[in-house]
Amino acid sequence: MGKNLARFKEIMGEVYDISHASALLGWDQQTYMPAGGAEDRGYQLATLAKIEHQLWTSEETGRLLEDLEKDTLPTLAPDSDDARLIVLARDLYNKRTRVPAAWIGEFTRLTTEAQQTWMKARQNSDFSSFQPALERIVEMNREYAQFFAPYQHVYDPLLDMFEHGMTTAEVQAIFKQVRAEQVQLLKEIAARPQVDDSFLHIPYPEKAQWDFGVEVITAFGFDWQRGRQDKSAHPFTNNSSIDDVRITTRFEPDSGMSALFSTMHEGGHAMYEQGIDPSLRRSPLAGGTTMAIHESQSRLWENLVGRSLPFWKHFFPRIQQAFPAQLGNVDLMRFYRGINRVEPSLIRVEADEATYNMHIMLRMELEIAMMEGTLAVKDLPEAWNARMQEYLGVTPPTDALGVLQDIHWSGGMMGYFPTYALGNLVSAQLWEQIHKDLPDLDAQMEQGKFNDLLGWLREKIHRHGSKFTAQELVQRATGSKITPEPYLRYLRQKYSQIYS
Amino acid sequence: MGKNLARFKEIMGEVYDISHASALLGWDQQTYMPAGGAEDRGYQLATLAKIEHQLWTSEETGRLLEDLEKDTLPTLAPDSDDARLIVLARDLYNKRTRVPAAWIGEFTRLTTEAQQTWMKARQNSDFSSFQPALERIVEMNREYAQFFAPYQHVYDPLLDMFEHGMTTAEVQAIFKQVRAEQVQLLKEIAARPQVDDSFLHIPYPEKAQWDFGVEVITAFGFDWQRGRQDKSAHPFTNNSSIDDVRITTRFEPDSGMSALFSTMHEGGHAMYEQGIDPSLRRSPLAGGTTMAIHESQSRLWENLVGRSLPFWKHFFPRIQQAFPAQLGNVDLMRFYRGINRVEPSLIRVEADEATYNMHIMLRMELEIAMMEGTLAVKDLPEAWNARMQEYLGVTPPTDALGVLQDIHWSGGMMGYFPTYALGNLVSAQLWEQIHKDLPDLDAQMEQGKFNDLLGWLREKIHRHGSKFTAQELVQRATGSKITPEPYLRYLRQKYSQIYS
Repeated sequence: MGKNLARFKEIMGEVYDISHASALLGWDQQTYMPAGGAEDRGYQLATLAKIEHQLWTSEETGRLLEDLEKDTLPTLAPDSDDARLIVLARDLYNKRTRVPAAWIGEFTRLTTEAQQTWMKARQNSDFSSFQPALERIVEMNREYAQFFAPYQHVYDPLLDMFEHGMTTAEVQAIFKQVRAEQVQLLKEIAARPQVDDSFLHIPYPEKAQWDFGVEVITAFGFDWQRGRQDKSAHPFTNNSSIDDVRITTRFEPDSGMSALFSTMHEGGHAMYEQGIDPSLRRSPLAGGTTMAIHESQSRLWENLVGRSLPFWKHFFPRIQQAFPAQLGNVDLMRFYRGINRVEPSLIRVEADEATYNMHIMLRMELEIAMMEGTLAVKDLPEAWNARMQEYLGVTPPTDALGVLQDIHWSGGMMGYFPTYALGNLVSAQLWEQIHKDLPDLDAQMEQGKFNDLLGWLREKIHRHGSKFTAQELVQRATGSKITPEPYLRYLRQKYSQIYS
Repeated sequence: MGKNLARFKEIMGEVYDISHASALLGWDQQTYMPAGGAEDRGYQLATLAKIEHQLWTSEETGRLLEDLEKDTLPTLAPDSDDARLIVLARDLYNKRTRVPAAWIGEFTRLTTEAQQTWMKARQNSDFSSFQPALERIVEMNREYAQFFAPYQHVYDPLLDMFEHGMTTAEVQAIFKQVRAEQVQLLKEIAARPQVDDSFLHIPYPEKAQWDFGVEVITAFGFDWQRGRQDKSAHPFTNNSSIDDVRITTRFEPDSGMSALFSTMHEGGHAMYEQGIDPSLRRSPLAGGTTMAIHESQSRLWENLVGRSLPFWKHFFPRIQQAFPAQLGNVDLMRFYRGINRVEPSLIRVEADEATYNMHIMLRMELEIAMMEGTLAVKDLPEAWNARMQEYLGVTPPTDALGVLQDIHWSGGMMGYFPTYALGNLVSAQLWEQIHKDLPDLDAQMEQGKFNDLLGWLREKIHRHGSKFTAQELVQRATGSKITPEPYLRYLRQKYSQIYS
């Protein structure tokens, strides 16, 4: 290895040591930290972030990167680890150096305050009190985009923060196709008799929920030597090393299966990180790549596996045993239909598989319109409600249950939402390919076996870490770029069975 | 505040943010980290240590310190927080800058290897295989002392690492008095009939042990909003903020009270850190001062409170209730005598209050002799065994149970042991003063009340953090420097009662 590359990797190693230390502090903050520790923890995280930023943006890092691009990159195979490291590092370096410190300072102050404002606005269901803050957030996001000019679309630099390598035009083309077909499917489902899921909305003992979740993700292949699970207010996955990937869960009093599906979801995120090639450790490559790919992994285990009939053919007798009082009189098909009930609703985070994407598309369309200036922030609630009616056939009675429901915008995040829906699409696209490559996968799942499935994901997705973008990975794994057809086929087939 | 002082405090704030982040990573390593995380955690801790060292030893830090000493220190009241910050920072700065990096590198390699060698040597009870490593460690510790020349005694710079402000001559003078009297006391006790503690060496349910320990330190005043307790292989206290002080405990299968006394001990360390004045946070002053003072706090709660008759007059009915099968037929006095049983033994960490100091003095004397060159390392086992016979009347049958029992020397640590014994002496000296200032303390303890006691400790010791050395603190609190008489009086009085 050349001297420059070795030195560059040494710096990256330290940058990611600090970043992973911060991740552990963040994990602790949400799991075990006593309340009193909050103030000093804030200082600690700020200092680590500052040092990480200094290392990233140092003169030496910039110079090494230029030299590596000039002298080393041309000599490397384009898909080699080292070539991809240099290319990805350039992108991360630019994102850290092109945005002036003054802008970051102002944006941080703005969004810190905006989150407080949003919380009150939501409590009072009063959009107008949040409107000025959101106007300024849109304005500053336009300024952010300018730092990355030229671009095809003003939304591109925002999207690139979370979904590096994807353009607005690409996502719009994909979503256009989804929208019409998914609205049509929802109409057909709404015309059918509703399925019963009353047995899910009764108390389930927590300890048994915990144990069953552990049994399931252990069967999936979660590595407990390199991971753990704890409780927290909001479930999340934390990577403080590819050999130390932690998930959290929570228990909801009147939703007996929510902890289980959340454990499968976070387990999916975690197994992705655990599957990264150890040679990529302590580098920008040592993490899952874009949000869409990350979400494809969590959704695949949660929905395509965890809400499938083959999975429950194996696990239903076991869950009945774990919860005899709750499920003793429920049969497999009633259970299966219940956990897959479709019901257009107001709140994104409670949406089912068939309606979730509609919540996302609506948000992305409104974000783009605000960024383009074709939608004034003051007209946002009206636009929101109109689209809710058009896509889901429901109209929020209040802004708290509508446009004010998500924290993202008050935190300045625009460009994040699309990754949720892309994750769904990718999960189904991979799923079709997996079934071609593993024709007896359903039979394996019926026996509670997931080795081959995890092996496929490790080989095609996990081990690469952040080497490839979402489009590159999906192309390599399935032979084509991201396309919505497999997801639409999956939905139609699944719900034909459930809603006859 | 002057510009230099403000900037210096800013740097110190960042230094201690990093140091506290490292502490949290260390806590996690010993409590919740999955085994697989060890390798990357090692890198993370090394990188944080490197950055902390760079910040401490930067040109800017050195220049600011010089300017502050020249321009600011003379204008400050000598006992003010700012004056003490500058004085302490100078000492810490010198300790970090006078030792060459090459020496640190070699010492780290030497001791890393020596610990492996020691572990094997202890397994085989073969001192000679450890001898060459220890010879080199003594040699390098002499080199270390040279970096701090001139000194009164070659052992001074080693002692100063753990007990800043204390000299070898001072400790020797104190110990000289202890030795003769304590040996005499042990002889008298040995002549009396032994007390029974068989009821301690049966299984006690873990959950009830945990709960009882929590009840006790809650009564002491441990602040659960700014602390927590977890399990670990070896009990320790961790400070990652004065508002986030954590203790750990462990349960031993055939020692029913060990977790309880360990919880009181670590609780004592933790309440010290929790009691530091909040205005000292994020600075070198925001931690307990020397090891002796720290140990005085843990020993005070563990022994002077936790093994006292007034304490158990309140808590014995409660512990009987918690462990009816184990203690239902034991009465208060039998219990009290049992937990205070004296028995000269081979192993320091198992020693009781009356014998513990003898283990320490022996080690310090041998360390000093090796450093002076008056004892060759090859003659160490013989010297060890002779002193064990002289002080405790027992002779180790093997070196594993003798000179090879502690990890400290293999890790390069010389100068640490005396702080344990000094802590015992200080605890009793404070205790006498506390009883003068709070004449009804025994009555309070008999009612399970510790507010006044904790208040006294907060006022006289805790709030000062690292502002004062052990001698200064003890002088301020009791009117005289550290003296062994109170401890000797305490032992004689206590054991007269127990052994009639």
